[in-house]
Amino acid sequence: MTIPKTHRAVQLAAYDGASLTLVEKAVPKPEGKELLVKVLAAPINPSDVMFTRGLYGLKKALPTVPGFEGSGIVVDAGNLIGKALIGKRVAFTHKDSADGTWGEYCLTELTSCFPLKAGVSDEQGAMLIVNPLTAWGMCHVASQENAAAIVHTAAASALGRFLCVLAEKKGLPVLHIVRRPEQRELLLSLGARHVLVSSDADFDKNLRTLAKELKATIAFDAVAGSMTGRLVEALPRGSSVRVYGALSEEAITLNPGQLIFAGKSVRGFYLTELFQPTTLPFLLKGALDVQNIVEGGFTTTVAARRPLAEAKEAIAAYQGAMTEGKVLLVP
Amino acid sequence: MTIPKTHRAVQLAAYDGASLTLVEKAVPKPEGKELLVKVLAAPINPSDVMFTRGLYGLKKALPTVPGFEGSGIVVDAGNLIGKALIGKRVAFTHKDSADGTWGEYCLTELTSCFPLKAGVSDEQGAMLIVNPLTAWGMCHVASQENAAAIVHTAAASALGRFLCVLAEKKGLPVLHIVRRPEQRELLLSLGARHVLVSSDADFDKNLRTLAKELKATIAFDAVAGSMTGRLVEALPRGSSVRVYGALSEEAITLNPGQLIFAGKSVRGFYLTELFQPTTLPFLLKGALDVQNIVEGGFTTTVAARRPLAEAKEAIAAYQGAMTEGKVLLVP
Repeated sequence: MTIPKTHRAVQLAAYDGASLTLVEKAVPKPEGKELLVKVLAAPINPSDVMFTRGLYGLKKALPTVPGFEGSGIVVDAGNLIGKALIGKRVAFTHKDSADGTWGEYCLTELTSCFPLKAGVSDEQGAMLIVNPLTAWGMCHVASQENAAAIVHTAAASALGRFLCVLAEKKGLPVLHIVRRPEQRELLLSLGARHVLVSSDADFDKNLRTLAKELKATIAFDAVAGSMTGRLVEALPRGSSVRVYGALSEEAITLNPGQLIFAGKSVRGFYLTELFQPTTLPFLLKGALDVQNIVEGGFTTTVAARRPLAEAKEAIAAYQGAMTEGKVLLVP
Repeated sequence: MTIPKTHRAVQLAAYDGASLTLVEKAVPKPEGKELLVKVLAAPINPSDVMFTRGLYGLKKALPTVPGFEGSGIVVDAGNLIGKALIGKRVAFTHKDSADGTWGEYCLTELTSCFPLKAGVSDEQGAMLIVNPLTAWGMCHVASQENAAAIVHTAAASALGRFLCVLAEKKGLPVLHIVRRPEQRELLLSLGARHVLVSSDADFDKNLRTLAKELKATIAFDAVAGSMTGRLVEALPRGSSVRVYGALSEEAITLNPGQLIFAGKSVRGFYLTELFQPTTLPFLLKGALDVQNIVEGGFTTTVAARRPLAEAKEAIAAYQGAMTEGKVLLVP
């Protein structure tokens, strides 16, 4: 494969969510354990939107190229092990210290990618990490912490739908929390058995009863704000609430008594923490598990495919109708 | 010792902080691992005040007798092991399922009391658990979690002063946070080396710098409200904030990003959790450690001694000037 000197990429010039333009920039040269990937597809996820607005935990020096995950072909590598992957189709994540996936080429690392199975398309392969592998990580942490069931908020998300299917396959009950009644129907159609709508008048009471019944002692919360405190309040004694997103864009509020007297705790959940070199065999197990589900027919809905030049419009379209499906950038 | 059929005790009739009267009631009969103690002295602590106002995590069926700790002589016991303690002077805590320590007699359990050393007075012995042993528990948890230093809020409290002396003896640095400049002087006079005043304009910045320098990755917070979130924000990556009080009487507010991206966590700290039968030898070690400090000359200041009949006035006096010292009820 011939690697060009320059490639086209979506460049973010300011953390305002809007300063996005298509630029021509140098194709980076992989060093050490780095790999260079020719990008096949890269999705827009809520975390990407937060990143472009400067609201994500990670900030890169500007200008930079956004995009946290994608699929592609390995075309170059910094060391011999990496060179063995040249020509392979992979799912991959960006490097914190380099440009992201919204370009024709992108750097990744040996421990930040995994080979795609033949039955997984380029498009589905581009969306395996941020959502499916995170859902897989949630099931893993829940079983590590001996939770008999999981509570999940913003459960109609791509991640939530995947979790619904994955946890069912693992025999781990999920108590799904959604904001609107139609999202409840969507999850029921995927086989969900316990779905509560947070706008219902008796939501807190039902959550408490059901969490107790299912012995759901862990919650994964994408909402933050007052939702985190409501989860802490409703879950059984000793429960742990793991915050992994802040869709409400509000500070968490909590009743201190629930921490002091009911042994409950609040911490974060961040896939990158699980994605460490030492846990690679364990993650390759996750990579197989999630791909088996995709091969088995459960796919993430793609609402639209857009060229890199239309990234800005693609973000706007995605934000307008997040639950309709993902928007993919296709170089 | 002759045990009377009835005794005088302070009775709380409503969780309003004020419905306190002296009543004559039956002296309970110890069963199983229970001990009956003839009370020598019992302090008024902030947790007692919260309890009488219905703001504490534990609520007993009304009417009840408040009071979480005290000193006394064991006069009866439910089993043979307990009977071996008859005549011994002990520090003790109440039973969750029975009346508290603000009476002439009180039930406790074998695992909720420990013998007093000869050099510890009845009065100092009455105040060894809620504050000194909690400070001891904090040092224990900090070393379990490999924290190189502790951050402590409301640090001019009786607990905070004891922690100052105990941690110094253990070689564990403490970053004390107080609300007023004069409290800073008080702690410095006890040997404190790092004291920050939370009302100072550069408090958050200084807290961040000093916590990083000391590698203070654990905080014990008695304030809750926005203070918990400020601690979470200022402490190093991976730190744990343990809430053990809510002096602000406000909900905790937190930046979710600090949990998700900086690996920080918030949970409770509750001495009763450490005070379990299985950890008894470990607590007896704590009981010796704290008594050695009292014997060594560091005592909790007693601002006033009042008879049981004046409990209501004693609470008012205590709340008006908490940092002047403890108010003891002496039957």
